Amino acid sequence: MTGPLQGLKVLDLSRHLAGPFAAMTLGDLGADVIKVEAPGRGDDTRHFPPSWNDISTYYLSTNRNKRGVTLDLKTPRGQEIARTLAAESDIVIENFRRGTTERFNLGYDDLNEINPRIIYAAVSAFGSDGPDRDKAGVDLLMQAATGLMSITGEQGHPPVRAGTSLIDLTCGANAVQGILAALYVRERTGLGQRIEVSLLGAGVSWLTYHATAYFATGEVPERMGSHHGAVAPYGAYPTKDGFLVIAVATDALWRRFCGVLGLDAEVDDPRFARNTDRLTNRAVLDELLMPVLAQKIADEWSELLSSAGVACGPVNTLDRTLSMPQVLHDELVVDLPHPRIPDFRMPGLAIKLKGTPGTIRRPPPELGQHNDEVLTELGFDRDQIENLRRGGVI
Amino acid sequence: MTGPLQGLKVLDLSRHLAGPFAAMTLGDLGADVIKVEAPGRGDDTRHFPPSWNDISTYYLSTNRNKRGVTLDLKTPRGQEIARTLAAESDIVIENFRRGTTERFNLGYDDLNEINPRIIYAAVSAFGSDGPDRDKAGVDLLMQAATGLMSITGEQGHPPVRAGTSLIDLTCGANAVQGILAALYVRERTGLGQRIEVSLLGAGVSWLTYHATAYFATGEVPERMGSHHGAVAPYGAYPTKDGFLVIAVATDALWRRFCGVLGLDAEVDDPRFARNTDRLTNRAVLDELLMPVLAQKIADEWSELLSSAGVACGPVNTLDRTLSMPQVLHDELVVDLPHPRIPDFRMPGLAIKLKGTPGTIRRPPPELGQHNDEVLTELGFDRDQIENLRRGGVI
Repeated sequence: MTGPLQGLKVLDLSRHLAGPFAAMTLGDLGADVIKVEAPGRGDDTRHFPPSWNDISTYYLSTNRNKRGVTLDLKTPRGQEIARTLAAESDIVIENFRRGTTERFNLGYDDLNEINPRIIYAAVSAFGSDGPDRDKAGVDLLMQAATGLMSITGEQGHPPVRAGTSLIDLTCGANAVQGILAALYVRERTGLGQRIEVSLLGAGVSWLTYHATAYFATGEVPERMGSHHGAVAPYGAYPTKDGFLVIAVATDALWRRFCGVLGLDAEVDDPRFARNTDRLTNRAVLDELLMPVLAQKIADEWSELLSSAGVACGPVNTLDRTLSMPQVLHDELVVDLPHPRIPDFRMPGLAIKLKGTPGTIRRPPPELGQHNDEVLTELGFDRDQIENLRRGGVI
Repeated sequence: MTGPLQGLKVLDLSRHLAGPFAAMTLGDLGADVIKVEAPGRGDDTRHFPPSWNDISTYYLSTNRNKRGVTLDLKTPRGQEIARTLAAESDIVIENFRRGTTERFNLGYDDLNEINPRIIYAAVSAFGSDGPDRDKAGVDLLMQAATGLMSITGEQGHPPVRAGTSLIDLTCGANAVQGILAALYVRERTGLGQRIEVSLLGAGVSWLTYHATAYFATGEVPERMGSHHGAVAPYGAYPTKDGFLVIAVATDALWRRFCGVLGLDAEVDDPRFARNTDRLTNRAVLDELLMPVLAQKIADEWSELLSSAGVACGPVNTLDRTLSMPQVLHDELVVDLPHPRIPDFRMPGLAIKLKGTPGTIRRPPPELGQHNDEVLTELGFDRDQIENLRRGGVI
């Protein structure tokens, strides 16, 4: 059993991050994913530094559980082979510029005609229609456009980018949700459909409480460093050795927090008694906490406060995170030997189905690694494959 | 037609953000979601500021498309009613502390016994087992634990929190993916299953290329403000009026970028010709760009560079984002009149299924708003409901 999607075929025509991440998730859930890349150069991310034994770590991070084929989709022969693959696929994912797949005769209407069961996910920056439909989008631009960047960073300092490509990843997760919902419909009706997700939609939908607060008050939220608009104390505080984050979410926890820090006079101080009081007097409160927290190292405070039920912990750098006993216990880092990287490792499965668990079966493919295998499955013989190779189609 | 999940029933026992967001997404996709809250106080988020006509905007942002009931799950009668609801539900979502639903006789084994088709999603901070299984987790803590915070912020400055609760939201999206995959399996086998997602898993899986780069090089990534580890120029640059983000992802785009800025001497400069060169000489490059970019306002540069195909745009504050013509065109902001908030608005649907689109049907419920309706559907008569109310069970 490969996972809940065993038996399903995915044609991954996408490049970069959002689409490939979505296709990888479907692969993790058990589907047979065929990644199509341009002959010669392949996915742009193959050329992003740094590399691991000459393979881009960026590419490696979002392409496991796929078979890799090359196809020149600008040639009629390449398009024809892609159509043949689509005819027997359940799902297609693409994130080309608007109109490209139609030019390749690989648009939704083209594929629906030969395979009415096809579920076709179009991933774009701004959507398939509207004034910005032809604008290019990358994660940075979309963190800026969607307002997320304007609320990330220190107060009075320039906006900063969230350290990972969260808009791309969210958009990929949205594509997966749309595809799986369409799959459920297809079980009922026998029919596929077109799904659209955009980077813009991913970012705007994640404004959640910031958006509703803005609509309610008209106040434009600002950057708050590591603080929270609705809870205090909350944020990263320096300790004797490093930063410690603390989140005191309720008034009951405030009392326990004061107990651990020895703040006997402050616990019932009317400036701090309720969360709304602490929000109003955050600056005074923080000044009061700093010298106390500076007396011990982050791990010591972390243990003391955790025992009292207060959410807290050190600000981990990646070396610490990726070796956390809990991370290893949860198999959130997995070894996945690669022919050219015997010690290859990467993040594991975050979605755990206890009845039909997903699996990690294949390292990210080399460019065109499965050309012969996949074309043979389609009925091509050795000479035909050699002709395609010589003609630059694969 | 309410959407792809029409006819499915979801019992939402979750509080705060990750679980309610997941349940709302299932509601957006057409499911009938019943949100269960403690009588009297309800979801903690109902008490988070700011409010809109006395209703918390935080609560409002993640609870549309649900019916609201109150049940005291600490009472045998409340548990019994919850079990009756679960018996006819397709999906249960819960994010209580470990062991709580078992104490309530609402654990997976309890519910599977009365409804083998049940899909049971357990949302936790660190997972259901392992050394940290009992630790509390909130978004800030998890941004810190998973390393995301260590790579967000300016170089040489304290770590900052990504401006939205991205770990909670990612975890919610993971729950939805697991549930939908299990639903596909159930169509095949007739059997439900238990699904587990954690905040830790959500954060670690989103380290993607940072994790593989660290495993490859042993170099711990640092905060880079708005820059990118693998692409240059990339980031927020000050202009005559505000910040502009620019992402020059390929060497071809670099040539166009230089054309617009009039950097004729720099385009073939060996320090900048290829992306790897520009990464090496980023500081020199940025110093060279600053005075040029300071000559026009952000919108002007944005138009000029966009016309040349270079991804760029102003760093929008929320007022700008939420009134973007493209955002309105994509229905990413929707009006959803609420009995107490006639002008209520919130972010719309980011997942667009063209054949069976999701719908927005209900404003977030008041506490216990649908008690009578839901209990009547379960076969309770008026007197019985009144007894439950008087007994504090609902």
